[in-house]
Amino acid sequence: MIIKAIEEADAISYGEGVSKRVVIGQKEGAPNFVMRVFDVAPGKTSPYHSHDWEHEVLILNGNAVIVNHDGIETPARPMDAVFIPPNEKHCLKNVGEEDLRFVCLVPLKGEDTE
Amino acid sequence: MIIKAIEEADAISYGEGVSKRVVIGQKEGAPNFVMRVFDVAPGKTSPYHSHDWEHEVLILNGNAVIVNHDGIETPARPMDAVFIPPNEKHCLKNVGEEDLRFVCLVPLKGEDTE
Repeated sequence: MIIKAIEEADAISYGEGVSKRVVIGQKEGAPNFVMRVFDVAPGKTSPYHSHDWEHEVLILNGNAVIVNHDGIETPARPMDAVFIPPNEKHCLKNVGEEDLRFVCLVPLKGEDTE
Repeated sequence: MIIKAIEEADAISYGEGVSKRVVIGQKEGAPNFVMRVFDVAPGKTSPYHSHDWEHEVLILNGNAVIVNHDGIETPARPMDAVFIPPNEKHCLKNVGEEDLRFVCLVPLKGEDTE
C-alpha cells in the first residue's frame, strides 16, 4: 500500500502554464490505469487533442471550461466529473483567477505514450 | 463527453453509514475502469476486505485512517492518494467529525463483482 500527498509526486511541465504529476503509475505498481494530477494556471489550457484512450476526470479546484470536439465549451466546477471517450477531441481551460487542478485517469497506454 | 456533478449519480448504501456513487462506469461507456465516490459517516468504516483488483484512491474531504493488511493505521487527509494493490486487505475509517469523501477507481471487474 502506498499513501502519498499529491505534492510528493514530481511536477512535469506539460506545455505553457500546465504541469502534470503522475501520482499512481507503473512505478507505484499500477496494473491497469494511472492517476495523474494536472495544474493549469489562470488563462491557460491543456492541449486540444484526441487519442485512442479515455479520460476519467474529476475537477478538484478552480473554474474550468471543457471544450468538446465541436469546440463547444461547457463549464465545470470542483467535484464535477468528466468522461472523455477515446478519439474525442478535448481540452480543459482555466477560466478562473486561481489555479485549476484536476485528477485525470487513463489506461496504462495513455501515460506511456502522451 | 459526459460532464456531471458527483451528486447526479445515485447514492447506493454500502454498509452502515457508507454510500457509494458510480460516477463514471459502464453505463457511461467506461471501457477499462470505473470512478466511484464514497461517503463515510463519522465513526464508520468501509468494509475490511481484499479482492484481486487494485484501488486507486484520492481523499476529497474529511479525516481518514487507512488500515493495511497487518491492521496498521495510517492517517490520510484531503489530497492524499492511496494505492492498494490487488489482494491486499484494507479499509478506510472516518476518524473525523465530518463526512469522509473519497474517489476510488477500480478496473471494470471490480465494480461488476463487489
